[in-house]
Amino acid sequence: MKLDYQLKKVEKNTKARLGEFQYLGKTYETPMFMPVGTQATVKTLSPEEIKEMHAGIILANTYHLWLRPGMDLVEKAGGLHKFMNYDGPILTDSGGYQVFSLAKNKKKDITEEGVHFKSHIDGQNLFLTPELSIQIQNKLDSDIAMSFDECPPARADYEYLKASVERTIRWAKRGKEVHKNPNQMLFGIVQGGAHKDLREYSAKETVKLDFDGYSVGGVANDHESKEDMYKAIDYSIPYLPENKLRYLMGIGEPIDILEGVIRGIDIFDCVSPTRLARHGHALTKYGKINLKNAKYKEEFTPICDHCDCYACQNYTKAYVRHLITANETFGARLLSIHNIRFLIRMTEQIREAIKNNTILEYKEEFIKNYYGDKNE
Amino acid sequence: MKLDYQLKKVEKNTKARLGEFQYLGKTYETPMFMPVGTQATVKTLSPEEIKEMHAGIILANTYHLWLRPGMDLVEKAGGLHKFMNYDGPILTDSGGYQVFSLAKNKKKDITEEGVHFKSHIDGQNLFLTPELSIQIQNKLDSDIAMSFDECPPARADYEYLKASVERTIRWAKRGKEVHKNPNQMLFGIVQGGAHKDLREYSAKETVKLDFDGYSVGGVANDHESKEDMYKAIDYSIPYLPENKLRYLMGIGEPIDILEGVIRGIDIFDCVSPTRLARHGHALTKYGKINLKNAKYKEEFTPICDHCDCYACQNYTKAYVRHLITANETFGARLLSIHNIRFLIRMTEQIREAIKNNTILEYKEEFIKNYYGDKNE
Repeated sequence: MKLDYQLKKVEKNTKARLGEFQYLGKTYETPMFMPVGTQATVKTLSPEEIKEMHAGIILANTYHLWLRPGMDLVEKAGGLHKFMNYDGPILTDSGGYQVFSLAKNKKKDITEEGVHFKSHIDGQNLFLTPELSIQIQNKLDSDIAMSFDECPPARADYEYLKASVERTIRWAKRGKEVHKNPNQMLFGIVQGGAHKDLREYSAKETVKLDFDGYSVGGVANDHESKEDMYKAIDYSIPYLPENKLRYLMGIGEPIDILEGVIRGIDIFDCVSPTRLARHGHALTKYGKINLKNAKYKEEFTPICDHCDCYACQNYTKAYVRHLITANETFGARLLSIHNIRFLIRMTEQIREAIKNNTILEYKEEFIKNYYGDKNE
Repeated sequence: MKLDYQLKKVEKNTKARLGEFQYLGKTYETPMFMPVGTQATVKTLSPEEIKEMHAGIILANTYHLWLRPGMDLVEKAGGLHKFMNYDGPILTDSGGYQVFSLAKNKKKDITEEGVHFKSHIDGQNLFLTPELSIQIQNKLDSDIAMSFDECPPARADYEYLKASVERTIRWAKRGKEVHKNPNQMLFGIVQGGAHKDLREYSAKETVKLDFDGYSVGGVANDHESKEDMYKAIDYSIPYLPENKLRYLMGIGEPIDILEGVIRGIDIFDCVSPTRLARHGHALTKYGKINLKNAKYKEEFTPICDHCDCYACQNYTKAYVRHLITANETFGARLLSIHNIRFLIRMTEQIREAIKNNTILEYKEEFIKNYYGDKNE
């Protein structure tokens, strides 16, 4: 059964939305942060740990799973849920972003038919098309599949972006035509950089194709400014239907989650909590801290006060710092648990604020603490 | 409170012993396999996972913890149990083995006073003495501390070994004199290579010092033959008191655990289950298998039939193989759980066989399966 999104409320002073969907008898609320399990595993963590932090949807990566272990193997295993032993909802991206960012030497040849590129693992020639991306996702049997889109460079010129948006719409249509998995939602992706007219065009044409949900794409590029990201959302949202999920791809910086929510986004994903963890960084109320810093050597207090996560309930900064310094993966595991839970707890607070029509106050308070002067 | 060992039974046909001790209200049985948590963490695992596999004592490493994070820091944290959040019994080794095997360039200068060597982390000059080893272990506040011994090369000549044994006895005496932790057992270590007279001398002199338990040392050296290891045990055991724990240091190969048990050893430790896990190897009833092998690519069955571990209950060989191939640490974590549980389950079966006076039959059956012709 496809998961069915219901919009419950729009906050009084902003476009922030409270929504929910049911999945295998359980209700999940949005706004939601989705942990990323690129290779059918959220790095260092077990499915039980992911559920203990009240995660909802998790992400898996079509490009990576296509290369390794392969779509047919996952299909034989009974699909991604069974393969990785996760019974919560799973979203797969289309592979487009990885093709454009990971392909060996970043050399690729974009044709109307699809994208030729070389594997980042062994350099073999690969060809990914909109149809193949959907076929892979059908076999992976995720709950939400994404259309295959082109992710053009952030600062590509207007003419290029226009042609790219048009191609992405044609690709979305082709993908939808071959989509066969009745239990899987298929999302369309709005592109168009920070151009008002391109975003409007892309949104309207994509919505015409009638997808189960929509993503605002092309915003997770490092070279793009935050202003451009917020513009991309503002220019896309007005044309998206109220009763469908809206997904801001690849975004997990707290300020951006807040800005996204306020602009009408429902779901977010980002590798940052686990990546930061592997580098010894922790998210706290008072900003990001680097546990490798010598000042935490003898701090026998939790990573973050009042945090309810397993790491904060059982370990000290001094211990986690020791693990990170000694290259022990249990350190990355504890920080992954903490960082993901931090973002999930933030979305829980965001939902509460939407219920109370206080999202702007929540945002101000959060930002004051998190990005304040005292922070590292 | 010191843990108190009670010998419950000696098997009818061998010297295999069934014993037990109490710790914080819980009864632990021997023979026992002790997982190794070198740097105050059993690599990749949480304390809860270690307890779920019915582990008893775990090991931590004095040399490593002395260097990082330092004995004073662990003391300030409230001792090792609190620092690493493990409320089961902990044994610390003396650091001797690491000084002799890990010291930078393996260059060291052994004097009567102690050993000068360079840190394997940053090359700084260090000096470890029998007294300092005990003082570190006192501060770590483990439940069992080990005397600081010299670990001479396996094939050192008789005269060298004799002098070394004598020095190790003097070191044991010096360590015992400074041992101050009333809740901590202190074990002596019997050395002497594969020489009957040296083992007898070492055992008798060490027992005269009246330790809380005894270890048969100098057997975990790769260059030593199995025959020499078994001789070392056979030549040491007759002189050790019945009512004290006997520990075979650094041994975890199944055949050696069996041979040790039959010769009267109670406790064993080895890094092999977690090290093998990181290299993609799993221990099974039918021997060690390498999950990187292509033949497991589509094996949608547990690592090991009838295994009750978390990994075998929830995942397939195909998934674990995927994780290992994709360098995902959750793979090493699942295999660590499985491999440690495999050895712990083996000791559970060994205890059952001792109760039934069938240890020789158990050994024969185990070896036929584990080391049989069909195996990889």
